[in-house]
Amino acid sequence: MKKQLLTLLLCGGSFAFAQQPVDYVNPFIGTSNFGTTNPGAVCPQGMMSVTPFNVMGSETNEFDKDSRWWSTPYTSDNDFFTGYAHVNLSGVGCPELGGLLLMPTSGELKVDYHEYGSHYEKEVAHPGYYSNILTKYNIKTEVTATPRTGLSRFTFPKGQGNILLNLGEGLTNETGATVRFVSDTEIEGSKLMGTFCYNPQAVFPIYFVMQVNKAPKEKGYWKKQREMKGVEAQWDADAGKYKLYTKYTREISGDDVGVWFKYDVAEQEQIEVKIGVSFVSIENARENLKAEQPGFDFDKIASAARDKWNDDLSRITVEGGTNDEKTIFYTGLYHLLIHPNILQDVNGEYPKMESLEVGKTSGNRYTVFSLWDTYRNVSSLMTLLYPDRQLDIIQTMIDMYKENGWLPKWELYGRETFTMEGDPSIPYIVDAWMKGLRDFDTTTAYEAMRKGATTPGEFNLLRPDANDYFSLGYVPLREQYDNSVSHALEYYLADWNLSQFAEALGKKEDAKLFYDRSMGYKHYYCKDFGTLRPILPDGKFYEPFDPKQGENFEPSPGFHEGNAWNYTFYVPHDIKGLAKLMGGNKKFVNKLQGVFDDGNYDPANEPDIAYPYLFSYFKGEEWRTQKEVHKILKSGYHNAPNGVPGNEDAGTMSTWAIFSMMGFYPACPGDADYVLTSPVFDKITIHLDKKYYPAGDLVIEASHATPESIYIQSIQAGGKKLKGYTISHQDLVKAGTLKFTLGDQPKK
Amino acid sequence: MKKQLLTLLLCGGSFAFAQQPVDYVNPFIGTSNFGTTNPGAVCPQGMMSVTPFNVMGSETNEFDKDSRWWSTPYTSDNDFFTGYAHVNLSGVGCPELGGLLLMPTSGELKVDYHEYGSHYEKEVAHPGYYSNILTKYNIKTEVTATPRTGLSRFTFPKGQGNILLNLGEGLTNETGATVRFVSDTEIEGSKLMGTFCYNPQAVFPIYFVMQVNKAPKEKGYWKKQREMKGVEAQWDADAGKYKLYTKYTREISGDDVGVWFKYDVAEQEQIEVKIGVSFVSIENARENLKAEQPGFDFDKIASAARDKWNDDLSRITVEGGTNDEKTIFYTGLYHLLIHPNILQDVNGEYPKMESLEVGKTSGNRYTVFSLWDTYRNVSSLMTLLYPDRQLDIIQTMIDMYKENGWLPKWELYGRETFTMEGDPSIPYIVDAWMKGLRDFDTTTAYEAMRKGATTPGEFNLLRPDANDYFSLGYVPLREQYDNSVSHALEYYLADWNLSQFAEALGKKEDAKLFYDRSMGYKHYYCKDFGTLRPILPDGKFYEPFDPKQGENFEPSPGFHEGNAWNYTFYVPHDIKGLAKLMGGNKKFVNKLQGVFDDGNYDPANEPDIAYPYLFSYFKGEEWRTQKEVHKILKSGYHNAPNGVPGNEDAGTMSTWAIFSMMGFYPACPGDADYVLTSPVFDKITIHLDKKYYPAGDLVIEASHATPESIYIQSIQAGGKKLKGYTISHQDLVKAGTLKFTLGDQPKK
Repeated sequence: MKKQLLTLLLCGGSFAFAQQPVDYVNPFIGTSNFGTTNPGAVCPQGMMSVTPFNVMGSETNEFDKDSRWWSTPYTSDNDFFTGYAHVNLSGVGCPELGGLLLMPTSGELKVDYHEYGSHYEKEVAHPGYYSNILTKYNIKTEVTATPRTGLSRFTFPKGQGNILLNLGEGLTNETGATVRFVSDTEIEGSKLMGTFCYNPQAVFPIYFVMQVNKAPKEKGYWKKQREMKGVEAQWDADAGKYKLYTKYTREISGDDVGVWFKYDVAEQEQIEVKIGVSFVSIENARENLKAEQPGFDFDKIASAARDKWNDDLSRITVEGGTNDEKTIFYTGLYHLLIHPNILQDVNGEYPKMESLEVGKTSGNRYTVFSLWDTYRNVSSLMTLLYPDRQLDIIQTMIDMYKENGWLPKWELYGRETFTMEGDPSIPYIVDAWMKGLRDFDTTTAYEAMRKGATTPGEFNLLRPDANDYFSLGYVPLREQYDNSVSHALEYYLADWNLSQFAEALGKKEDAKLFYDRSMGYKHYYCKDFGTLRPILPDGKFYEPFDPKQGENFEPSPGFHEGNAWNYTFYVPHDIKGLAKLMGGNKKFVNKLQGVFDDGNYDPANEPDIAYPYLFSYFKGEEWRTQKEVHKILKSGYHNAPNGVPGNEDAGTMSTWAIFSMMGFYPACPGDADYVLTSPVFDKITIHLDKKYYPAGDLVIEASHATPESIYIQSIQAGGKKLKGYTISHQDLVKAGTLKFTLGDQPKK
Repeated sequence: MKKQLLTLLLCGGSFAFAQQPVDYVNPFIGTSNFGTTNPGAVCPQGMMSVTPFNVMGSETNEFDKDSRWWSTPYTSDNDFFTGYAHVNLSGVGCPELGGLLLMPTSGELKVDYHEYGSHYEKEVAHPGYYSNILTKYNIKTEVTATPRTGLSRFTFPKGQGNILLNLGEGLTNETGATVRFVSDTEIEGSKLMGTFCYNPQAVFPIYFVMQVNKAPKEKGYWKKQREMKGVEAQWDADAGKYKLYTKYTREISGDDVGVWFKYDVAEQEQIEVKIGVSFVSIENARENLKAEQPGFDFDKIASAARDKWNDDLSRITVEGGTNDEKTIFYTGLYHLLIHPNILQDVNGEYPKMESLEVGKTSGNRYTVFSLWDTYRNVSSLMTLLYPDRQLDIIQTMIDMYKENGWLPKWELYGRETFTMEGDPSIPYIVDAWMKGLRDFDTTTAYEAMRKGATTPGEFNLLRPDANDYFSLGYVPLREQYDNSVSHALEYYLADWNLSQFAEALGKKEDAKLFYDRSMGYKHYYCKDFGTLRPILPDGKFYEPFDPKQGENFEPSPGFHEGNAWNYTFYVPHDIKGLAKLMGGNKKFVNKLQGVFDDGNYDPANEPDIAYPYLFSYFKGEEWRTQKEVHKILKSGYHNAPNGVPGNEDAGTMSTWAIFSMMGFYPACPGDADYVLTSPVFDKITIHLDKKYYPAGDLVIEASHATPESIYIQSIQAGGKKLKGYTISHQDLVKAGTLKFTLGDQPKK
């Protein structure tokens, strides 16, 4: 870990001179503590990312992709590099993608990654750029990216230099690739990806074209050979080993194949390698490469990537706060803009949802929808900061419904992986609609939502337990670990959102139906424990019952990735009703405070992340929000590899920090109100998109007299004092200024 | 084995009514006793063969492709069927091709061949047709072929019917395939083949398109999944197993992949499946399929294949002899016409030798050149019977030189596999030239031959030990099992052929050089043992020495696949000289007779197969030829699966029988003389190709008074009595008649 820290210090050193938002980003944040981000080169919402792959092949690695559940191509906890993975996921909970492993070596050609992998030093990462030195080979490696292509530059020592493309390994659990030489300097092929979160049918191909800027002296393939027995094993010198194909250059296919290029290189000679990808075809991969990287110009591509990031990050400028806080903030924004990413090629083509057909779009078609996470706060932040992209994201979701008959749940490169539960597209979309972003196909959106909310369970891909839910008003526990309460809680919130939407569209009957359903959470409230509690098919509560069971991802009857405390307050649409169930506001507040005080709050998973903001719904208790949010920011978010509390969840963790650091948070998806809290910075300017928010810039001011000035004394919006501790989206975006007066004492 | 015999009896039963040569063929001959032929459907010299594959997957099999050295997709000794292999080799000594395994099953879909394989009964095989009943499924399977495509017809019982294409297994030791659905009824892909005789770089792709005549109810792929460990294994239900892909239909690639089609079938419903292949591209495979099988018409295709065979087999008609003898004879001709086979697609394209380039021909481009075998007698028979094809074969060899810089040694689908030793293209081509077949590029042919005969060893792909051979006149034994004597004996004969050719072309110096070299065999003659004997680098004979070491393919210093006795007489170009070395004609004859009497003659491998004919070079000893040939025909050739003495060697074993049964044999490759022996049939009419042999039909007559009438009393050619027991090719083809008077007593 010393190396890591050194790198960060080096990076940190340059922050003193940083002027641009992009300079604050530290891509190493979230690369430890199971944050599952990576420091690879990527463009904002780019299809391509080029990421150092260091999770296989060495005993010195702390984690190995095949030795346990593991979902990231890179971790700061490891130290053995086996190449650059092309196209990766950031902040997800299952292994996927992370293939097309490109590796330079020097000296004798080795094609077994156990042998050719190398330790490394001098890591440098900026948005759109990553570099290290491979100590085994004394090779400097640098990578950058355009939206759909990657570019690597390898600086070799004198002698034999090799470039390997490993198509056998990768983070994905799928295997199988085919590749062929098009010329001495170009290869093309495809590799199967998928089985995300162990869904066996959610598979898809990635197509690629790779070009090198210098013809090799020799070239070929490798393939792991079958084990042989007896006499045949004696005859076949390659049996069970990696065989080098030295002459054959037509198609080679297999589970564990790769391509090698061998060079004579001069001292410090640089060789560049570019890879274009597509999820439609090899031809499109080549077209992407041609359009985005017609030549080889590393510095130009890296500079363009940096500029793209800076443009996007500059949507907000902050003043005050420490460098670390700025780094956490801008790195959070950076993480926000990685997924969903574009799926369409430069010609607009993309694979349709769950289909072999190729669609064509003039806008952006997005993919990687971790909606169980992102509907909670990412949707709101995208609506606020990048409304144009948010509209494309929503239109993508509606198009998926048109193509596949269902809104997405956890979409990945055209496949519905059915990961996690609920009907998350509803709150994701309704939240935007309620905040005024309505330029999408509302009619189809409503039709799609209503389908999920009314189709019987046996035909309902999104709500498999819909029959119980519709008839009983809740989902009984039918199997020990069926996550039944978690399912139902998601349905309640989704149906409340749908009810709001129906109401707005004048569909009164639907509005009532779905509203009534959304109140069904009350079935689960158990007075004995003061928590929600699973219900058995006979209507009785599940027992034995321990509300704490489910901590640290241990299985828990009725609850998914959490315990009863993590879920009990997850009825953001009816906090007052829940308080009533619990015996009144005071009891609610005390119980909620107890969650924090007793260590039952998990800042690292989604169900309870809005808990700190719930205090602010109760007059005189708002200081608790400010205090707890401040504590979580301090304890969970750092300018360091472990700087995200847990899995980044496709930007959700970072979005929590971004909102919290700016002083407001969307505590209830689908409710246009933000809950206010004390900002971290003295001044925050959000350069709102005038096309959607004509009032333009929103300036948030909050002078911090002392580091302890974390308590709101008063708030002015547009020069007028606010009465409460919430503000609607509509009021916020036209306020012009939001001014917090802070003090070091809570205002009770 | 009972089943086998029953089948043969059934087949035999129809012979009583047989009128046509094709009806005499028994494709089961050579399918046991390591004959390595197969009963699959194939056209004369067709690229495609469709062969029952029964060498994997069951404990009940006597032989398993992976349990030992094994080189045939089918053996009569086994009884477990796992599909039809498309494109196969017949009569070779190493495993190759035998992939694209097409299997019908009924009931539940299984994709592991251990589970889906079936026993079978009621095998029927005719040229261009094979059929059986799968007892496990009660499915009747039938296959037929065109030159480049296969067609299968499966008759199902009522219920669920499945069709599987296994791309993971095959006879080849190479693995890796890629495949995709083009439509509900069509798939396309490629699979790697090669590593023939464990040459790791001799690999090549086969491209295929497969179409079914009925759209399936469901379809998909399978792929063997990686083993997983620990937690991942718990999550992934398919780890280490065959996973069924039920929705995905784009490219799938891997070591062990397959395609399945699921049907609801009525009782006795027939589904047909056709497969086109190409060694150039998928597009060409489709073009081949379209050209040769535009529709689905099993009976028409099978009938056309039969007609093609009958046309070719009718080049000779025989009278007299038993049905078994006719069957042995016509089956021999059938085996002759399997390899070499065409390589070019219907559009004339073919993969150039050792190249990525695609060539184009208006004639036939051949492949599968087992030349160490076929130069000995197949060349002569092709020159005699099918001179047009022989010219294309020779031109193919010359084109290979043009493309790759070397004449072929053991060419396989565009790859030089370097199997066996010597410079066999020289005698193959010179033999034809000496017999008057000269309409090929003689200048280039000579240039090519001379290159092999003069290039220093370090640059000589055909004669790696050329330096020793050139400087010493022999090849010393430098490694225990380097086959040095065998190498040199091949060079002597090749150089003698080249000397003849040079002489004929007026190249006197070359003629002398190569003739002198060809006499170098004398170095090896050891008086102490009366045999050839390996020589050590210091010039002394190798010891300890046992002339019998090397029987039954056990390793033997200096000799390849044989012992000193099998090689000692292998100087057919200087039998008189060898006799002199041995101390005179009598001693020679006695020693040669001793080889037969002492069990040192191996009728199943090439080096000594001409031995019986050598007696006829010595006046008064010719009866020994007639006697030994008769004995070998009786003991080694049968109308039964074990009816070939050993490996068929691409027609060489059968050609020995064909010539011997007709009464003449080319005992010295490159010598236009045939040695005469007593024919088996009473009358043999060879319908010579008048374009090359204007005299037309050659009628051989030999009335057999008794079964013991095997001894020649006199011979007339064209009505004139012959003085000796040889006849030149030129005299034979214009003789019109060749009349043998036979008796039951040897004429000494």
